[in-house]
Amino acid sequence: MEQSFVYVVPLMGIIGLIVMAVKSAWVTKQDAGDSNMSELAGHIAKGAMAFLRAEWKILAYFVVIAAILLAWSGTLVEHSSPVIAVSFVIGAVLSAFAGYLGMNIATKANVRTTQAAKTSLKDALNVSFTGGSVMGIGVAGLAVLGMGSLFIVFYNVFVVSTGGDVNGAAMATALEVLAGFSLGAESIALFARVGGGIYTKAADVGADLVGKVEAGIPEDDVRNPATIADNVGDNVGDVAGMGADLFGSYVATILASMVLGREIVSNDNFGGIAPVLLPLVIAGMGLLFSIISTFFVKISKDTDSVQAALNKGNWISILLTVGASYFLIDYMLPEGELVLSRGGSIAFTKMGVFGAVVIGLIVGALMSAVTEYYTAMGKRPVNSIIKQSSTGHATNIIGGLSIGMESTVIPILVLAAGIYGSFLAAGLYGVAIAAAGMMATTAMQLAIDAFGPIADNAGGIAEMSGLPKEVRERTDILDAVGNTTAATGKGFAIASAALTALALFAAYVGLAGINSIDIYKADVLAGLFVGAMIPFIFSSLAIAAVGRAAMDMVNEVRRQFREIPGIMEYKAKPEYEKCVEISTKASIREMVMPGAIALLAPMIVGFAFGPEVLGGLLAGITVSGVLMGIFQNNAGGAWDNAKKSFEKGVEINGKMEFKGSDAHKASVTGDTVGDPFKDTSGPSMNILIKLTSIVALIIAPHISDGGSHTHASKENVDIKKEVTYEDGKKVEKVTVTVNK
Amino acid sequence: MEQSFVYVVPLMGIIGLIVMAVKSAWVTKQDAGDSNMSELAGHIAKGAMAFLRAEWKILAYFVVIAAILLAWSGTLVEHSSPVIAVSFVIGAVLSAFAGYLGMNIATKANVRTTQAAKTSLKDALNVSFTGGSVMGIGVAGLAVLGMGSLFIVFYNVFVVSTGGDVNGAAMATALEVLAGFSLGAESIALFARVGGGIYTKAADVGADLVGKVEAGIPEDDVRNPATIADNVGDNVGDVAGMGADLFGSYVATILASMVLGREIVSNDNFGGIAPVLLPLVIAGMGLLFSIISTFFVKISKDTDSVQAALNKGNWISILLTVGASYFLIDYMLPEGELVLSRGGSIAFTKMGVFGAVVIGLIVGALMSAVTEYYTAMGKRPVNSIIKQSSTGHATNIIGGLSIGMESTVIPILVLAAGIYGSFLAAGLYGVAIAAAGMMATTAMQLAIDAFGPIADNAGGIAEMSGLPKEVRERTDILDAVGNTTAATGKGFAIASAALTALALFAAYVGLAGINSIDIYKADVLAGLFVGAMIPFIFSSLAIAAVGRAAMDMVNEVRRQFREIPGIMEYKAKPEYEKCVEISTKASIREMVMPGAIALLAPMIVGFAFGPEVLGGLLAGITVSGVLMGIFQNNAGGAWDNAKKSFEKGVEINGKMEFKGSDAHKASVTGDTVGDPFKDTSGPSMNILIKLTSIVALIIAPHISDGGSHTHASKENVDIKKEVTYEDGKKVEKVTVTVNK
Repeated sequence: MEQSFVYVVPLMGIIGLIVMAVKSAWVTKQDAGDSNMSELAGHIAKGAMAFLRAEWKILAYFVVIAAILLAWSGTLVEHSSPVIAVSFVIGAVLSAFAGYLGMNIATKANVRTTQAAKTSLKDALNVSFTGGSVMGIGVAGLAVLGMGSLFIVFYNVFVVSTGGDVNGAAMATALEVLAGFSLGAESIALFARVGGGIYTKAADVGADLVGKVEAGIPEDDVRNPATIADNVGDNVGDVAGMGADLFGSYVATILASMVLGREIVSNDNFGGIAPVLLPLVIAGMGLLFSIISTFFVKISKDTDSVQAALNKGNWISILLTVGASYFLIDYMLPEGELVLSRGGSIAFTKMGVFGAVVIGLIVGALMSAVTEYYTAMGKRPVNSIIKQSSTGHATNIIGGLSIGMESTVIPILVLAAGIYGSFLAAGLYGVAIAAAGMMATTAMQLAIDAFGPIADNAGGIAEMSGLPKEVRERTDILDAVGNTTAATGKGFAIASAALTALALFAAYVGLAGINSIDIYKADVLAGLFVGAMIPFIFSSLAIAAVGRAAMDMVNEVRRQFREIPGIMEYKAKPEYEKCVEISTKASIREMVMPGAIALLAPMIVGFAFGPEVLGGLLAGITVSGVLMGIFQNNAGGAWDNAKKSFEKGVEINGKMEFKGSDAHKASVTGDTVGDPFKDTSGPSMNILIKLTSIVALIIAPHISDGGSHTHASKENVDIKKEVTYEDGKKVEKVTVTVNK
Repeated sequence: MEQSFVYVVPLMGIIGLIVMAVKSAWVTKQDAGDSNMSELAGHIAKGAMAFLRAEWKILAYFVVIAAILLAWSGTLVEHSSPVIAVSFVIGAVLSAFAGYLGMNIATKANVRTTQAAKTSLKDALNVSFTGGSVMGIGVAGLAVLGMGSLFIVFYNVFVVSTGGDVNGAAMATALEVLAGFSLGAESIALFARVGGGIYTKAADVGADLVGKVEAGIPEDDVRNPATIADNVGDNVGDVAGMGADLFGSYVATILASMVLGREIVSNDNFGGIAPVLLPLVIAGMGLLFSIISTFFVKISKDTDSVQAALNKGNWISILLTVGASYFLIDYMLPEGELVLSRGGSIAFTKMGVFGAVVIGLIVGALMSAVTEYYTAMGKRPVNSIIKQSSTGHATNIIGGLSIGMESTVIPILVLAAGIYGSFLAAGLYGVAIAAAGMMATTAMQLAIDAFGPIADNAGGIAEMSGLPKEVRERTDILDAVGNTTAATGKGFAIASAALTALALFAAYVGLAGINSIDIYKADVLAGLFVGAMIPFIFSSLAIAAVGRAAMDMVNEVRRQFREIPGIMEYKAKPEYEKCVEISTKASIREMVMPGAIALLAPMIVGFAFGPEVLGGLLAGITVSGVLMGIFQNNAGGAWDNAKKSFEKGVEINGKMEFKGSDAHKASVTGDTVGDPFKDTSGPSMNILIKLTSIVALIIAPHISDGGSHTHASKENVDIKKEVTYEDGKKVEKVTVTVNK
């Protein structure tokens, strides 16, 4: 009877989408300001949509080809199904749609925030954060609705209708087909994150190098042909890219937990599928609590702290989720011992599962906090870079690189403790559930993240429209908070990607029909080395791509200044769309190579060397990717705020230094180096580590040892243990029978 | 009877030391030039010895304390022995002595090379390369003599006199005690490489920032108080540091091969110890062939290529070693199958072992070649950085970072193929033997490496003494070749460190009494993450240390310019020794923290979480350390040569750019960032990955599972395999009996 509980999940998704629609309508209803502002906002919106259209065109080819391959491969091995192609397409389409929703609302909310800032900071925050909420709730709602509905369908088709075992091959097939959804979502994320990252930095660097440095006009000046592309970039990279990234993590953690949950034989009231169902319900519940919490993000007067308001909403969502998880887990999971007999099998209770949820939330919070410490103004790391700027460009760079490397220590220790702790709490299921717990409040996290670029854009529009100083001051307050949330959001994103990858890794090993990944074997160790190298070449390609695309942008802006007379005197309008086109084309072109590496590397290694070597490769990619991600994000963030600190003036060796000083110039160099670090290659690591893991998960049944389809080790291996004592020595006799 | 063959090894070492003494006497006999030159050379020699003395003082404390701890720990578990403390002290003393020998000859050969350059390039090469040979042959000779003699002693004490099994616990104890030698050697290497790296770059950066930039005097100008420290640094970092590093690798690879060789039951004519003895004999033989090859490094007229002469010597040593290895292996190892039953046991023949030697030599050659490509002038990588210098400091940095990351790809693929290939050839023994094969020609490699800083110093002395232009031109030719050999030497050093670490890793697992390192276990995976983070914090500390020490140097030089009147007019001499003292103190102070991490991290993890988690930690350190090492070495080398290219002029976008242009200034920024990368943190990775592995090897018996001393898995595990067919399905029945 209680199996109908499964319908609660898509219902929660639908509630989310309804709330999103209401909030979206409210934002649209707000005043969009005068015709000048509308026109500028129109340029940005048009540019953003131009990017989406160009991206979708390429993606359409990719999705069709990949779907055909998936459908074909689904017919090859027993228990697989070509239906996986359908769920892949749905995942891709929903992820793309989530990106569209975010971009659409962000390009509406930006100008309306500017207009609201004419009245008060309170109103401006309200509009910008509601815009962010639409994105956050929309992404989570689509994910919950999509995963929930597809699970119901596949569960009925592959398990209920066949009378299959919920712990056996039937359910495994249902989940394998569902994994297509995750692959679709993450594939889109690759293009959105990497392409978006290249887009935004090419525009940013290009606009700065010619506009600020050569022509001497301020940032966000309407005379700069690249300024619209720059503002579009904020939406493309930070809204659509971040949204697709978290959509992918969200979906993948749920999936991985479900895959591992299948192997737990559970005597519950949900037909034995409670461990499979639980991650879906936690996600849905987190969505509802995130919605409730958005209403607490408010200030009552202009002197109130915006950061405090955001923190309040965030903590309410987390605490509500923790509390409700306790009751939910207690309700759904059975009493007594649960066992997942893989990866050093341990028995655990339902309270262990709750413990894992708590650990996941703590890991996420700590990772964000450390990121903030390393990138915030006024703290030791940024101050040390400021000091080192006084001796020139080189020492500024050395300082930032050193800080970035140092900043990996605590997050890695937290992550390692999280892995170990959640494993002790509930085995490998615990590791996956910790990831799911951390992602439960994705809607809220993303609302806070998406608020940043909206505020940034609002400031840009205020500047470009020449609005009064107090308006710009209000948007500046929002923008400053947005910079902090951007940094903490990156900490959360990499943490989520790391835990997601580990959860997928755990799920992969089961599907691949192996019981261990032994790096003491030479080939597995070789796989580990090659895997760890991939984030380096991926980063190198991403950074180099920004450099190339920025050069194209520089040449185009120079051309317009030269060939279009009257730009400087506001008599002629620059051809904004040309710059938008350059960024769009470059980002599409440059993401092919990194994308190919992420998709092909696991396939080549998996098919050529088998599942255990692929496991080594995945571990290498994950470990090195997380480190390179944290290093690059934090170095970039610290450089950025070191530079920003000069705007208010900083004291170096007892002397105040301001904008325009030599030390400030050195800090600008660091900021420019940090741009591709923190907005292109750093965040791309998230996608790289998740996507390679999902690809491995999908091909796992095809490369499993012996070529046959081995779903769970416990179905194929019988282990008998016998302990005797001979001459006072303990002799353990283990008989392993392998059915190949 | 043929067991007495063992005495051949120390004999080879003695031959090496005799040749060294003859060559050293020849160098000392050469003309040291006029009084001015002698005085400058005296300052450098005095500074170098001041550093050694200060370093030795600290080391003495460390060695005594560590020896006491080792002796005490040797009494704790069965089969261990406090004698390990003795071999530890001998290893430390010999390594320190090798450093002394190198510094001593280098500080004599430098000025004599300058003097010889007055006559001809041929003579200058002869003096400088003979100086390098003294270092190379001395290091290898001490290692071969030390390891060879100690092995004879311990073999007789622990095996022959007790009548113990050469494949069993008796021999294991002998080798464990011998491991103390390797630990001693590598500990000294830590201080020499990290301390030396900090020393040389603090002096270099400090001298450049005030001298070249602020005071506008040329490099190596006698008026610069830091110039002597700068020249001392070349000896401290590149001679003593590199020497200790390779001494450590050389010893560790031999040791690891011996440890693995013990587990091979061999029916040979050497009392069953041929697989243990082989790596020692290969090392001794490689030393002799290196000596022979040094006589081929000659040019007959000034227009001959110095690089070609060095290459000729290098290739002769390699080819002779390959050829002789074939006959040696054929002579020593028995016919038929050899089996090392760990790490995926495979059977192999003696020709497989020869194959592994060849693979090792190929890996070393390829790694050096790739390093040269990525750091050489006129090739694509350096040219791309030059081009990106035209758009400013930031794009120069971005270019270098991107190139450095890209440069990891081929070396890692080569390394992975090497691991896999040598394993297929001869199991884990093959992996270790490949490392030993690669290191066989260490004497020659080091001779070529040490030649570089001697030539560099010779140029410095020529400049400081105001010698005629043609003298400086000749030393410049040598110096340019020295820059290339420095880069390829770094490639060789990191490759050797990587293979050494892997060999130690393989040996460690056996001693720790475990059979696998399964990263699918949550705690092992956590260890992998923490391990991979350590190279990041180690690099961060090293880079930051250089920054701090350079600031001290800058302040001291500024003080001298201010307080000592007449320096600029050559009327007063700067206080060189103050700058030497600053670099010395800073390097000693700053190496404590990284050193503590390298020594303590494996101990803490090993004792707290057991051998398998420590295995994960080691794998993480090795993988990430190799990547960070290659990345930093090559980025630094490429930046350096991009800057140097401006001296002759480079064409950017159809325009010639020279020294003093904006693009050149940007390239100087890259070079300064690259300095600590390529000379401090990058090469430190070698020591980090080897030292942590040796520490693990030493503590392995103390942390082995169950607390008991489990030397070899095969003594404790019986495996029976039975294959039957039921219903057409293959059923493998494996019976494992574990004697705990």
